[in-house]
Amino acid sequence: MAELAHRIRAGQLTAEEAMHSCLQRIALRENEVGAFVSIDEAAALQAARTADSAGLGGPLHGVPIGVKDIIDTRQFATAWGTSFYQGHQPGRNASCVELFLQAGAIIVGKTVTTEFAYFKPGKTANPHNLAHTPGGSSSGSAAAVADCMLPFAFGSQTAASLIRPAAYCGIPGYKASHGSFDLQGVMGLAPSMDTLGFLARDIEDFELARTVLCGSKPAIADFDDTPLRVSLLRGAHWSEGSLEMRDVCQRALAALAEAGAQTGELACPEVFKVLTECQKTVMAYEVARARIFEYSHYREQISSAFVDLVESGLQITRAAYEDACSTRDRAMRVLQSLFVDTDIILAPAASGEAPAGLDATGDPLYSRSWNLLQVPCISIPFGHGPQGLPLSVQMVGPMNADDSLLAAAKWVHSQFKRQLEAGA
Amino acid sequence: MAELAHRIRAGQLTAEEAMHSCLQRIALRENEVGAFVSIDEAAALQAARTADSAGLGGPLHGVPIGVKDIIDTRQFATAWGTSFYQGHQPGRNASCVELFLQAGAIIVGKTVTTEFAYFKPGKTANPHNLAHTPGGSSSGSAAAVADCMLPFAFGSQTAASLIRPAAYCGIPGYKASHGSFDLQGVMGLAPSMDTLGFLARDIEDFELARTVLCGSKPAIADFDDTPLRVSLLRGAHWSEGSLEMRDVCQRALAALAEAGAQTGELACPEVFKVLTECQKTVMAYEVARARIFEYSHYREQISSAFVDLVESGLQITRAAYEDACSTRDRAMRVLQSLFVDTDIILAPAASGEAPAGLDATGDPLYSRSWNLLQVPCISIPFGHGPQGLPLSVQMVGPMNADDSLLAAAKWVHSQFKRQLEAGA
Repeated sequence: MAELAHRIRAGQLTAEEAMHSCLQRIALRENEVGAFVSIDEAAALQAARTADSAGLGGPLHGVPIGVKDIIDTRQFATAWGTSFYQGHQPGRNASCVELFLQAGAIIVGKTVTTEFAYFKPGKTANPHNLAHTPGGSSSGSAAAVADCMLPFAFGSQTAASLIRPAAYCGIPGYKASHGSFDLQGVMGLAPSMDTLGFLARDIEDFELARTVLCGSKPAIADFDDTPLRVSLLRGAHWSEGSLEMRDVCQRALAALAEAGAQTGELACPEVFKVLTECQKTVMAYEVARARIFEYSHYREQISSAFVDLVESGLQITRAAYEDACSTRDRAMRVLQSLFVDTDIILAPAASGEAPAGLDATGDPLYSRSWNLLQVPCISIPFGHGPQGLPLSVQMVGPMNADDSLLAAAKWVHSQFKRQLEAGA
Repeated sequence: MAELAHRIRAGQLTAEEAMHSCLQRIALRENEVGAFVSIDEAAALQAARTADSAGLGGPLHGVPIGVKDIIDTRQFATAWGTSFYQGHQPGRNASCVELFLQAGAIIVGKTVTTEFAYFKPGKTANPHNLAHTPGGSSSGSAAAVADCMLPFAFGSQTAASLIRPAAYCGIPGYKASHGSFDLQGVMGLAPSMDTLGFLARDIEDFELARTVLCGSKPAIADFDDTPLRVSLLRGAHWSEGSLEMRDVCQRALAALAEAGAQTGELACPEVFKVLTECQKTVMAYEVARARIFEYSHYREQISSAFVDLVESGLQITRAAYEDACSTRDRAMRVLQSLFVDTDIILAPAASGEAPAGLDATGDPLYSRSWNLLQVPCISIPFGHGPQGLPLSVQMVGPMNADDSLLAAAKWVHSQFKRQLEAGA
């Protein structure tokens, strides 16, 4: 997106040409990939032509984007992946949408989400192998960006909804520190963990998007002179992952050491071992309140997985919820102390390659804990597994140190690409 | 509300009789007080009759309530105190509304809010003196409950929008720990501070409402055997308040000492002195993003005060915002340390009696800091000032210790009432 915006600004490409290129790719692939719940080609092309004739506007002038269908837009209906909200037309744009439109972006369409951004999949397939899941819940956003239908799309994460599809589809995904971006007009699921994020093909795009949403651009660190300190944290579920998952983490650590980073390993703190269970408790308790209206009024039209989630949440006592939050708070302090001796933590992004089948979106196991802890996370692709599907690692940074994490991710991404090219 | 619910359950009163009593009071007073933006008397009476014929339901069976007009209801339009959202009909109930309805409550109407819950007042007058402001932004909720039109109403607070109108109208008001209650369907203003709260005439009502929203009821402390430790913290703006404000705080401290509390005073920590400015920075920055859609699309129909707030927020750099958040985080740690030696902090609830005039809602000065710090606060009335208008004090508790604060407030409220009756 940043590169495209730059080329449009530099006059190397018109907004109409950029839009045309996206729409051509969509025409070629959408029938198979199924990334969108709605597209308005005519409006998108018209907006691009208007942008060209209006002259240069904001920093996203003429850039085509996709919007996950739990995010309100005036232009398109917002159905949250449900049947009963099909055609539901919000009267307002979500704040993130409004700010992107003001910066000059053009919405091509709404992208597929799982039902309520939880488990029940939409129609989307993994563009690398149509028989495999793209991951969820930001399924359509990840698939559309990975398949070059769009340069950028909004996603969100409450458990693993952004890092996992980014990993399965082989593109960078960025889940911000909780609270970084305004969520007005974004469906709430578990508010203490709900976070807006982005799917793109370059880390620079995350910086640009962040600047559009948060204002002035901060100074970014440079790791050419000061070596990045990277520590692998295998985590409580390391042994449950695939061989290739463990392999990509270790290859990534070695690659970064070779590139000049100071690398090491961290033992998994004791309190981290219960965080997956804590995340499930916090999520169920909060979901049961955030979506109580739909549970009460549309139960028959909701998947049994989501009904079960709400009902389990209604059974959780306030004391059990508060205990889970206390454990989280303790783990946050432990995590903060780990960042004294390392700049970023390297961890699995998902259990391995995208699983076969479109009836589930894979296991959220490798993101639940990090998301509970509210810290910023970036998924970065690094090669492929035995089935030829992408593999990724996850980089985790200190709370609210998103700018430093993005700077580190930019360096890591470039090193990965360099080593993959050298090895190819 | 709790007492009314008890009487209905005990068969001492029908839901229809309870509703009739509210509607009679509304018929008598609403023309002068102006607490409501909409009322549906017929629907409320019908719901009460249905409740009576259905037999006993949830814990709020047959209880009439009011809902601040920044909170979505399917039954009524939700206009946020603006002209351009008049008649805007949400398709969903806010979570708090849905949970109350399921518990058996009946919505009488939507109560007046200032525009966007900020400065521009609605039509509401102070029921104790119609020439004076009821405070804002939860103006209608406070006035309706104080004037016995309703036993309970929802309010919210981002700066001083609940504690101040409660104080001006002479009723208890409870602003929960930030994040206590789900905010789906509640207009966002500054999400790091937006908090749902309640206005009622008894502290027990807050416990009941909290149980309905959060689930199982916790064990509540008792201060008959273990004396409550109360410390007055005059705060950075003590000398700017009225004589009667300072007087009510000191009388309250003396009254609690006489009732058996361990009382003392706390010096104002240095970092607290900049919190009002921090709150303004955080608020403007977040409001500029949360309400960017309305600012962009309806600017001509928005008050200059709110336009100025958004525009100042758009000028605040990300670094300045992050600095203000860091100062807040530091002050939170200092505040937490104060609660080692005291159970609650006693502080001014407002600058004094409700000011004359309906063109402004009074100064938010005495709540901005506490609200920035996200801690639970309760306003408790204690006598009257020289103009015969109510005065209150504010009780502040540790983060997420709402149950203990409510228990303390119940004891304090009863001691205040006892002493006022003894002195009368």
